[in-house]
Amino acid sequence: MSGGLSIHCVDVASGRVAAGLQVIVRRLGADGEPLNDVLAEGVVGANGLLAHPALMSEAITPGGYEASFRVGDFYRAQGAPVPSPAFLEVVPYRFHIAEASQHYHLPFKFTAWGFSLFRGGA
Amino acid sequence: MSGGLSIHCVDVASGRVAAGLQVIVRRLGADGEPLNDVLAEGVVGANGLLAHPALMSEAITPGGYEASFRVGDFYRAQGAPVPSPAFLEVVPYRFHIAEASQHYHLPFKFTAWGFSLFRGGA
Amino acid sequence: MSGGLSIHCVDVASGRVAAGLQVIVRRLGADGEPLNDVLAEGVVGANGLLAHPALMSEAITPGGYEASFRVGDFYRAQGAPVPSPAFLEVVPYRFHIAEASQHYHLPFKFTAWGFSLFRGGA
Amino acid sequence: MSGGLSIHCVDVASGRVAAGLQVIVRRLGADGEPLNDVLAEGVVGANGLLAHPALMSEAITPGGYEASFRVGDFYRAQGAPVPSPAFLEVVPYRFHIAEASQHYHLPFKFTAWGFSLFRGGA
Repeated sequence: MSGGLSIHCVDVASGRVAAGLQVIVRRLGADGEPLNDVLAEGVVGANGLLAHPALMSEAITPGGYEASFRVGDFYRAQGAPVPSPAFLEVVPYRFHIAEASQHYHLPFKFTAWGFSLFRGGA
Repeated sequence: MSGGLSIHCVDVASGRVAAGLQVIVRRLGADGEPLNDVLAEGVVGANGLLAHPALMSEAITPGGYEASFRVGDFYRAQGAPVPSPAFLEVVPYRFHIAEASQHYHLPFKFTAWGFSLFRGGA
Repeated sequence: MSGGLSIHCVDVASGRVAAGLQVIVRRLGADGEPLNDVLAEGVVGANGLLAHPALMSEAITPGGYEASFRVGDFYRAQGAPVPSPAFLEVVPYRFHIAEASQHYHLPFKFTAWGFSLFRGGA
Repeated sequence: MSGGLSIHCVDVASGRVAAGLQVIVRRLGADGEPLNDVLAEGVVGANGLLAHPALMSEAITPGGYEASFRVGDFYRAQGAPVPSPAFLEVVPYRFHIAEASQHYHLPFKFTAWGFSLFRGGA
């Protein structure tokens, strides 16, 4: 696989892909903060991936990105017993792409109380 | 231990506590974004902790917080071979405290390519 | 803290320390497999730690160890909906101590579907 | 994807798939210990996967399995500065498959000092 960005989300409390989790992707500006423009927005599908054309191949150029995950809403929608506010509400993840020819696979493994995000390998 | 916030940082590439890692803690405003005022700022000490009086006990009230970790600078300062920009530059971590009587232990385990952040238990 | 081994267990599905989780620690023999003799056995306490005198300071010498965690039993005891058999029944963790003067902190963060175990820093 | 087992290995210290890492897969017997017979053995390829016909679809039946990863050898082969013995030499991972019609994706994210193993989603 060459180029592009794949975001794969698993609720590791239940061992299931996080279908329905809302994700927004923005570019970061020169100050390291996300720009207002949304690059991709959607919900995770039954395969665990955020499907959006802007994440594929040549649309992803070198630079900084933020993916933000609405984890609090995800657990509330399931009726899970989370505090109010939830420990995790919106989880931002910021990373930089130096080589646009590489594929970046980002596996987001989470519970209501934490998460693991290690690049899935080049 | 009752109340307060402890932030413990380990570079899991080397298996050592991340002495020297710079961390900034801010409260989140009503919009979920960090306020300008810095609540605590400093570098991780030889015991892996960010020592700062504002993180102890009664100073931590219910609400949202962001801890941000300067991971890119940390690896560059060691001469580690990171891309430019680094995959991780400044890592933000946002969470909410619902019960100020509990202690929140946040163990940040990271490499130059990802991290794990699960609440260390109430 | 110098020398010894601390094992700290958190159920990251619930965000709570895993009080009641059964843990057994054995030394590894020359073939890398655990010896029959049990070095320490017990349940995790309300502070998340396995308290046992054999894990402290001078009792821990250089060599290989296996900690095994009865994760399947832990979730069944709570009435959690795990398959039969559970995805994780008994989780073995094998590691080696090269320098007995160092303290080894092992934070075990788990759900019914996986876990994270990074040395907590020297 | 239906049925079968995929084992994907990433060295999260370097952010690269762990090409060359040796992996052995065995079934577990009724006592929860691995049987002598090897089900699959090989090295991780350039795509991060252990490719072996015994891991595909109908060859994987309900029951217990152990995948073991030769992490110590992996880092020594790269000339990485690990202690002797390495903190992690051979890492066993034991899990149970209850429903053979599901695909089990096991992403092994590791450094010389720890690892994360959460089922990659059904």
